[in-house]
Amino acid sequence: MDDTKRKEEEQVMSNEDDSKGSICGYDSLHRLLKDNLKPHLFHEVSRLLTGLNCGKPLETIVLPELASTLSAEHGFDLQAFCFQADKELLREPRVVRVGLIQNSIALPTTAHFADQKKAIFDKLRPIIEAAGSSGVNILCLQEAWMMPFAFCTREKRWCEFAEPVDGESTEFLQCFALKYNMVIISPILERDINHGEVIWNTAVVIGNHGNVIGKHRKNHIPRVGDFNESTYYMEGNTGHPVFETAFGKIAINICYGRHHPLNWLAFGLNGAEIVFNPSATVGELSEPMWPIEARNAAIANSYFVASINRVGTETFPNAFTSGDGKPAHADFGHFYGSSHVSAPDSSCTPSLSRNRDGLLITDMDLNLCRQVKDRWGFRMTARYDMYADTLAHYVKPDFEPQIISDPLLHKKSL
Amino acid sequence: MDDTKRKEEEQVMSNEDDSKGSICGYDSLHRLLKDNLKPHLFHEVSRLLTGLNCGKPLETIVLPELASTLSAEHGFDLQAFCFQADKELLREPRVVRVGLIQNSIALPTTAHFADQKKAIFDKLRPIIEAAGSSGVNILCLQEAWMMPFAFCTREKRWCEFAEPVDGESTEFLQCFALKYNMVIISPILERDINHGEVIWNTAVVIGNHGNVIGKHRKNHIPRVGDFNESTYYMEGNTGHPVFETAFGKIAINICYGRHHPLNWLAFGLNGAEIVFNPSATVGELSEPMWPIEARNAAIANSYFVASINRVGTETFPNAFTSGDGKPAHADFGHFYGSSHVSAPDSSCTPSLSRNRDGLLITDMDLNLCRQVKDRWGFRMTARYDMYADTLAHYVKPDFEPQIISDPLLHKKSL
Repeated sequence: MDDTKRKEEEQVMSNEDDSKGSICGYDSLHRLLKDNLKPHLFHEVSRLLTGLNCGKPLETIVLPELASTLSAEHGFDLQAFCFQADKELLREPRVVRVGLIQNSIALPTTAHFADQKKAIFDKLRPIIEAAGSSGVNILCLQEAWMMPFAFCTREKRWCEFAEPVDGESTEFLQCFALKYNMVIISPILERDINHGEVIWNTAVVIGNHGNVIGKHRKNHIPRVGDFNESTYYMEGNTGHPVFETAFGKIAINICYGRHHPLNWLAFGLNGAEIVFNPSATVGELSEPMWPIEARNAAIANSYFVASINRVGTETFPNAFTSGDGKPAHADFGHFYGSSHVSAPDSSCTPSLSRNRDGLLITDMDLNLCRQVKDRWGFRMTARYDMYADTLAHYVKPDFEPQIISDPLLHKKSL
Repeated sequence: MDDTKRKEEEQVMSNEDDSKGSICGYDSLHRLLKDNLKPHLFHEVSRLLTGLNCGKPLETIVLPELASTLSAEHGFDLQAFCFQADKELLREPRVVRVGLIQNSIALPTTAHFADQKKAIFDKLRPIIEAAGSSGVNILCLQEAWMMPFAFCTREKRWCEFAEPVDGESTEFLQCFALKYNMVIISPILERDINHGEVIWNTAVVIGNHGNVIGKHRKNHIPRVGDFNESTYYMEGNTGHPVFETAFGKIAINICYGRHHPLNWLAFGLNGAEIVFNPSATVGELSEPMWPIEARNAAIANSYFVASINRVGTETFPNAFTSGDGKPAHADFGHFYGSSHVSAPDSSCTPSLSRNRDGLLITDMDLNLCRQVKDRWGFRMTARYDMYADTLAHYVKPDFEPQIISDPLLHKKSL
């Protein structure tokens, strides 16, 4: 990472307010705090905000020269951290290197669709090369990475971007998977040709030999703000698969599914060690929730969570309206990036930039998952039988909530 | 609140490290950041860390003179904030004033048990008076407030502190409930005399006419760190009751239950608008998780969460050992206070002091709960039927996780 260049960028701290009263120009919360607090205070704030991994601050990783060169040449944020786990007596460490890519689109949404997709491929190529040459074992791209997040518009012509699971985006990534012996998670807009051209929001899992291991379809579809996605695809029908790869058991909780603790839980019950959350979400709607939900999922389920959000503002040809009563507008707001990784011991990495493309590389010893389970015992103390009953009752139309009313409720106070 | 006094205390910013490398002497994360960041940076950091309630920063409340006087005289932290909700056309606002009390014990654990309990009563009296005279509608005390948190010791003599639901602690609080027309939640160590003297960790709900509305028993019992509570009481048998009081529908998720998303969920399914989380937890174990879990519960379940943690370090006569392999030690570590309230729109109040007794007063318009439900639609998109099936399968001994293995898993890489 070019530290001088980064420092210079951090100095560009503008007081300019955007329309929501926030400050443009700073790169991430972590860097803002680091640059403006005395070291001993920053240390304590970090302890409270990002935890201590196995009791110690998170360490950074030195990456190969090529990665730094690509980052400098192509202007993407590059950060790398290492989670530790305790040494065990009977198991070897199982260290996996995970890469997350966040990016803005590459051409205006008015460009020819083929050109838009090709331009995204071109933009991602050096970032994927940086990941591959850094020895990343599992790489994940952002939600619907091969297109603008056009679902705000409700216009059906964007469906043209959809591809079958073995389409051109998969082919593009299979080469890198094979070249770098790397598992790649590719969240696309899927067209299911064998079932009447149905559209899905899908993550394709490509194995480290370039083979397609399988797919998972987004379980929960938003109807909030400008997220008019329910116009395009329905709730997924793939359950909660955990993919057993050469580098660990992984699952994908796509975007809005992160708001549903039961969705996180089900991936955990099926044995996931890392759950990826490829997303597309905007500042005004969700930014304070972004680290909370990911970290809570990691803590509650004793696994790693890798969160990715796209970057930048995407403007569409026709203005649209949505749930918030705002006048018609042509953009979705600012996708705030801030990709990061949360660990089961409640620690987390700093986030990538709020404004720039980026590659976050994180080493994690998957042994930490079981160590945290042994320590905290959440599975053991969870009383799943009670909740299986609770939910079975709740879903019945005649469900009666357990309410204890104060018998003096309607007595006048003295 | 005596601002001059507070400012002075904030100046006592020591560099002294405690044994875990954190800084003693600062009062709370919020005050540390406010005192050390330029205002426009503090504003942005607050937006990211504590959200904006209905799009605006949280406002403070002016309290009656008496409350400030009691706070200054008795040296407890006093803070007061106000959550807003949108005006509705068909419902009036339902503003409730909630009070949370955190405190250290009052006498050494070697004192006569009767004296220890009486000293806690004496210490709490002015704080409860401050709450009552400030018009608090619902007041909640910390977990097992009427005793030291002696469960680390595993010694059975501390069971002497246990009381029936209608015991002296309840009687003590019933007077205040009646005097101030105030619902009081009183988490005690319960002795169930009608069922063979069984011990429970219980919250008693006292109505605003001084009547006992009911009780709830802690659902999830920890076996972690020094939390040897499973030596004393078992998992609760009261389900997930929601208490319909004069001031709203409330529930109590006692301490370790906050690590279980299903526990939070069940209170939500039964209709809770505010869930209290009276706790006793220490810095080394849980401090970075503390705000994450509470805020996530508020977001995921569209209700308010009111979190309370005790304060100070409690030392016991006999050293004890626990799950962490540390040499025998006689204290539990630092209970870090930091009581706070989280709202369903992802905003939250600053926390009370990490070191001092305190009273946090928060106004909340309960209409916000349904507004957030209408906006985000988490209940509507939750697919509870799918998860009822998932859990029903999971609890069977022959459950098989949904795993998709890479068929090339054992193929050697090129």
